[in-house]
Amino acid sequence: MQFAVSRSPIYTDASASPLLITTHTPIPYISSMGKLSLSLLSFLLLLGLGYAFTEQQGECQLSNIDAREPSYRVQSEGGQTDFWDNHNNEFRCAGVSIRRHIIQQRGLLLPVYHNAPVLVYVVQGRGTYGVVTSGCVETFESGQQQQFSREERSQRFREDRHQKVEEFQKGDVIAIRAGDAHWVYNDGDQELVVVVFHHNSNFANQLDQNPRSFFLAGNPGNEQEEEQYRRLRGSKRGQEAQSELGNVFSGLDDELLAEAFNVDVETARKLRGQNDERGHIIRAEKSIQLIQPHRSRQERHNGLEETFCSARVKENLDRASRADFYNPRAGRFSTLNSFNLPILSFLQLSASRGVLHRNAIFAPHWYTNAHSLIYATRGASRLQIVNHRGQAVFDGQVREGQVVVVPQNFAVVKQAEEQGFEWVAFNTNENAAINTLSGRTSAIRGLPVDVVANAYQLSREEAQRIKFSRQETLIFNANDARRSA
Amino acid sequence: MQFAVSRSPIYTDASASPLLITTHTPIPYISSMGKLSLSLLSFLLLLGLGYAFTEQQGECQLSNIDAREPSYRVQSEGGQTDFWDNHNNEFRCAGVSIRRHIIQQRGLLLPVYHNAPVLVYVVQGRGTYGVVTSGCVETFESGQQQQFSREERSQRFREDRHQKVEEFQKGDVIAIRAGDAHWVYNDGDQELVVVVFHHNSNFANQLDQNPRSFFLAGNPGNEQEEEQYRRLRGSKRGQEAQSELGNVFSGLDDELLAEAFNVDVETARKLRGQNDERGHIIRAEKSIQLIQPHRSRQERHNGLEETFCSARVKENLDRASRADFYNPRAGRFSTLNSFNLPILSFLQLSASRGVLHRNAIFAPHWYTNAHSLIYATRGASRLQIVNHRGQAVFDGQVREGQVVVVPQNFAVVKQAEEQGFEWVAFNTNENAAINTLSGRTSAIRGLPVDVVANAYQLSREEAQRIKFSRQETLIFNANDARRSA
Amino acid sequence: MQFAVSRSPIYTDASASPLLITTHTPIPYISSMGKLSLSLLSFLLLLGLGYAFTEQQGECQLSNIDAREPSYRVQSEGGQTDFWDNHNNEFRCAGVSIRRHIIQQRGLLLPVYHNAPVLVYVVQGRGTYGVVTSGCVETFESGQQQQFSREERSQRFREDRHQKVEEFQKGDVIAIRAGDAHWVYNDGDQELVVVVFHHNSNFANQLDQNPRSFFLAGNPGNEQEEEQYRRLRGSKRGQEAQSELGNVFSGLDDELLAEAFNVDVETARKLRGQNDERGHIIRAEKSIQLIQPHRSRQERHNGLEETFCSARVKENLDRASRADFYNPRAGRFSTLNSFNLPILSFLQLSASRGVLHRNAIFAPHWYTNAHSLIYATRGASRLQIVNHRGQAVFDGQVREGQVVVVPQNFAVVKQAEEQGFEWVAFNTNENAAINTLSGRTSAIRGLPVDVVANAYQLSREEAQRIKFSRQETLIFNANDARRSA
Repeated sequence: MQFAVSRSPIYTDASASPLLITTHTPIPYISSMGKLSLSLLSFLLLLGLGYAFTEQQGECQLSNIDAREPSYRVQSEGGQTDFWDNHNNEFRCAGVSIRRHIIQQRGLLLPVYHNAPVLVYVVQGRGTYGVVTSGCVETFESGQQQQFSREERSQRFREDRHQKVEEFQKGDVIAIRAGDAHWVYNDGDQELVVVVFHHNSNFANQLDQNPRSFFLAGNPGNEQEEEQYRRLRGSKRGQEAQSELGNVFSGLDDELLAEAFNVDVETARKLRGQNDERGHIIRAEKSIQLIQPHRSRQERHNGLEETFCSARVKENLDRASRADFYNPRAGRFSTLNSFNLPILSFLQLSASRGVLHRNAIFAPHWYTNAHSLIYATRGASRLQIVNHRGQAVFDGQVREGQVVVVPQNFAVVKQAEEQGFEWVAFNTNENAAINTLSGRTSAIRGLPVDVVANAYQLSREEAQRIKFSRQETLIFNANDARRSA
Repeated sequence: MQFAVSRSPIYTDASASPLLITTHTPIPYISSMGKLSLSLLSFLLLLGLGYAFTEQQGECQLSNIDAREPSYRVQSEGGQTDFWDNHNNEFRCAGVSIRRHIIQQRGLLLPVYHNAPVLVYVVQGRGTYGVVTSGCVETFESGQQQQFSREERSQRFREDRHQKVEEFQKGDVIAIRAGDAHWVYNDGDQELVVVVFHHNSNFANQLDQNPRSFFLAGNPGNEQEEEQYRRLRGSKRGQEAQSELGNVFSGLDDELLAEAFNVDVETARKLRGQNDERGHIIRAEKSIQLIQPHRSRQERHNGLEETFCSARVKENLDRASRADFYNPRAGRFSTLNSFNLPILSFLQLSASRGVLHRNAIFAPHWYTNAHSLIYATRGASRLQIVNHRGQAVFDGQVREGQVVVVPQNFAVVKQAEEQGFEWVAFNTNENAAINTLSGRTSAIRGLPVDVVANAYQLSREEAQRIKFSRQETLIFNANDARRSA
Repeated sequence: MQFAVSRSPIYTDASASPLLITTHTPIPYISSMGKLSLSLLSFLLLLGLGYAFTEQQGECQLSNIDAREPSYRVQSEGGQTDFWDNHNNEFRCAGVSIRRHIIQQRGLLLPVYHNAPVLVYVVQGRGTYGVVTSGCVETFESGQQQQFSREERSQRFREDRHQKVEEFQKGDVIAIRAGDAHWVYNDGDQELVVVVFHHNSNFANQLDQNPRSFFLAGNPGNEQEEEQYRRLRGSKRGQEAQSELGNVFSGLDDELLAEAFNVDVETARKLRGQNDERGHIIRAEKSIQLIQPHRSRQERHNGLEETFCSARVKENLDRASRADFYNPRAGRFSTLNSFNLPILSFLQLSASRGVLHRNAIFAPHWYTNAHSLIYATRGASRLQIVNHRGQAVFDGQVREGQVVVVPQNFAVVKQAEEQGFEWVAFNTNENAAINTLSGRTSAIRGLPVDVVANAYQLSREEAQRIKFSRQETLIFNANDARRSA
């Protein structure tokens, strides 16, 4: 059976944006650090479109949603970042944005904090990360601590103390609060790929909905980039243009920094990274050897998380044994919310992970309390999204590496294509509530059969079939008999 | 005594809108279903004015408030719905909207969910409703359940299981969460009249403030209507126009629905209601016989409501014995908030019901934490609303069937006219806090007498009279002696 | 050493606004009450600029922040109020505004309530205030209560009962909920100076972000002022212009008020204050003698605050013994949040008070969850504020009487000038979380030394110095040895 496209299909090549790239075509860029990066220019150009935001503030027609690929790429010494244009209508309306870091071996994403809470999903590889919160105790200390006085230790070469670092791997979700600085290091043996979801309209962000990333090191957004950006922006809109990337230290005075850190001015100057041309993901020239407990100890947690300093922020969503819904012939679905990762109640976000086998269907449903951003991690699916007018605002294919935003209350249905479909979804509520239209726990099944019969002009027998024929809950295997008919 | 109108009186015929109708004049409409409904066109036209919203986003001058009547009517087979134009300034600023369903005997309001929480008040009649939440257990089952296996039962004619249904009657308030589907059936012996209050700016709605109603059946907004709407809108604004009503199934694919429901394609197609010309309120052709416990059992509740599935959502506000404020000569006032209906703490809404006798006064007051939408259920009242500039932004009459929005912190006073006045008010806070300017518990009484004397340039004796002369709290009987003087 | 200004310094004379005044120059005004007040006109004119708000709604470029002085002054019989223009970009983006009352001896700020929660800081002097909440019991009663019946008492000259009044003094912070009426009386022996911080974008305000003050007495905004205002505004924008000040009683009908208060019409008319030319701060012609417990009893509180009626709303932030951070050579820092003043959890606001000695440094830091408005109470400081692009959006001096807004997540550093620096800060979160960049509990110290070394291209020895050299936490004394080098 072919998946029938019943209404004006909206194909997902998103030809509207000349900057858009497809995942199967290598993105051209000028890789030399410190020279002009065309991708970065694109990035900055698109950020500039933020001015257009105000013109439609408060109105979300959402009559057309697209499967989106990244709009621009920022290349760095140790990796690259693909940005989705957060000024697309559905991103703006949902107050969300997303980016994807591809970090090479020994690549280090410099310490950064954001103006909104973020959820990270690890698509590929493994690595180590740290979230540093000022005021939390440095609980990781090197082993020589008993033998030396505090002053001696801090001067010694291989000694250190710092806040918790943690390993992560494919399938992990990591939750980070607005304003908490964090860094990521690829100490694995392959490229590390993570997608980072920003909820810019979250209560935790009191400024406008633009994503803002405050780096604590390096020199993202250097002078050449700014100049080019200014030229592009100037020709387009005539407004003063500035790079959207930067190191907060670069705006502070050398001598004041020297006093604040009690170091000499030359050392302090290095905090500002003015001649650093490595970008925001660097290659670790010096080996990074981290104090770490054994992995087994890391995995243990007792649910007792008294403060933000010791709160658990990571959970793996990939293990099949963890599934909340499971159908051996159709697939599985796992959810991560404030009940199984309590810090999510502070972030007011949740996530889920779905795996659909060949041709399997994820029940038509809507979220009553959340927008949902779907990132396709493997395969492809047909997807239909319907608004309150009964219109299919999206009816097409979503495939690996693409993103679709499903607005709150809009109905959506998925059917995997031949190769199956896997995705991670980020939801703007700590406990996103799913309402299904068909299946064992659906809203339709909650209606009296006489109401169903009258509403749909069915006989009572038909109404009962509508209510009771589908026994599964959320994930159905397609009926091959019917399909071949 | 005549009620003195001290400042530019604003009469409530609201002549600004040529579409506006008065309650005493029958609304003309073309009743044949499936043909063009002029009222619906009006409705759609007005919804289109939503584009104008953006122009004033963020600013609420509110120098003029009106007593509003419905702006358009949508006629259906089994009843009609009157819509107030939610783009009026005070509705938009308060983030609220309201509509009134008039459901004939055997009329069924098709299952629908909204993008915002709603409060329903039953103005007239009685009926049965159900709120279906996906995932909640079907707790109502027909009696034959012991005799048959599950499979047999679901195939049998008169057997069924579904979620809770409940009867309701005049004076009931029903609270419904955003995204929860619900239906209403008039199985009473007269027309059923309900007003439905939407709080579009509620935290529970993460999209813009437009009310969105997602029907699960029928064909509201059919092609003819769309065509006419497009013509009207096109001539007016040149933008693509679309009906604002629809059945979410209509945007989904027949064959996919067939698989999702595990039924044949012909049955699945009926879910989409494409040739259904009955509108959103249908006449039940097949008798609707609902599984229901005895009424006495329904009324019992022990306050133990563990989940949303079993939460109580209904309470009667009309019974005089329930009054929170009562003055036999002047009237009564009843409040419904999260203390007596706990689900309201989730909805962040509350309601109240007032009855004023002839010429009685409701103390001048302001709500510190809520906007208030007043729907007049009987009689008429003089009403004055004052902004922070000391201007009467409304000074006129409100009568049965009209709506007035009182913005947060604005001062308001009511005096019933000869026939008395009754109203229901919907407030945008789970525990709307009323501050009175006069009476036993008023703010003025909380001031030291010396502060009162200096502030108002009164003698201490006058200041004491201002503080202490009015012994009643909220509802006063007018002093006929003074009035005749 | 000179404080090095590393980037385009932004001087704080804010010459952009021709209406702006400096604190060292007497503000010219026409003092006769009832005649035209030029300052008030300026005030009204600036309020009118609120229309411009909508044009940038939702976007906050914030590429330039200023140290602001008041934009206009409103003169009254018993004092004056200096208003900061809340339409400045950083005020608007942060959703905050501020004003300063200077109340002469025996001056009474008339009872007023606001549309947003406010925090008051007492800069100079002492006085008495009352917060009146309708429905709270009048707990302060004069002593003769046992000897007379209720009716007799209320007629007697010196008897009274009213809600709690409380004394306050320099250094006190007072928290007032949105919609709660309050008054202030200067019964001290010098001018009383208070600054009032409004959080207009607080959840408690459901209208737009304009500050609205509802007076319960007097005649702020009289006819002459309105006429002048209309003229100015009309020439500027062609829209209808109205004074932004008023007494809510003035919009209510005399006779209706007479009935509501059960007094004669002549007394009721005085509530409306139509011919009152004293302004919003009056001089108490009649002595104000308040029922008050002994001061010692007032200071006692046991932390048991069961209702809003008895909640503690005041705390002194000036006492050195109260400091949360203290460094005898550098200064001190005290915080007031929901843990030490529980009502702040309802207001979602907090405050802090800082004292820096000569040349002392307040560590570079950012607030993860709050905007911060700094009011300089004494001395001067160099201040740098850095945005996410690494740009110094402010780099200049802040001195006594000026205000600076630090947006959420923006990095900021202070260094006191020769005379030292003192300030109060108001934060838009009940527990504003500070993250430092340097010092013993800083984010940098939480990073592994190898991450620091690679990120900043430092040797491990330098990285350790960056992490560990500064032992103090928040307030550092400048290293004079280095400075002279």
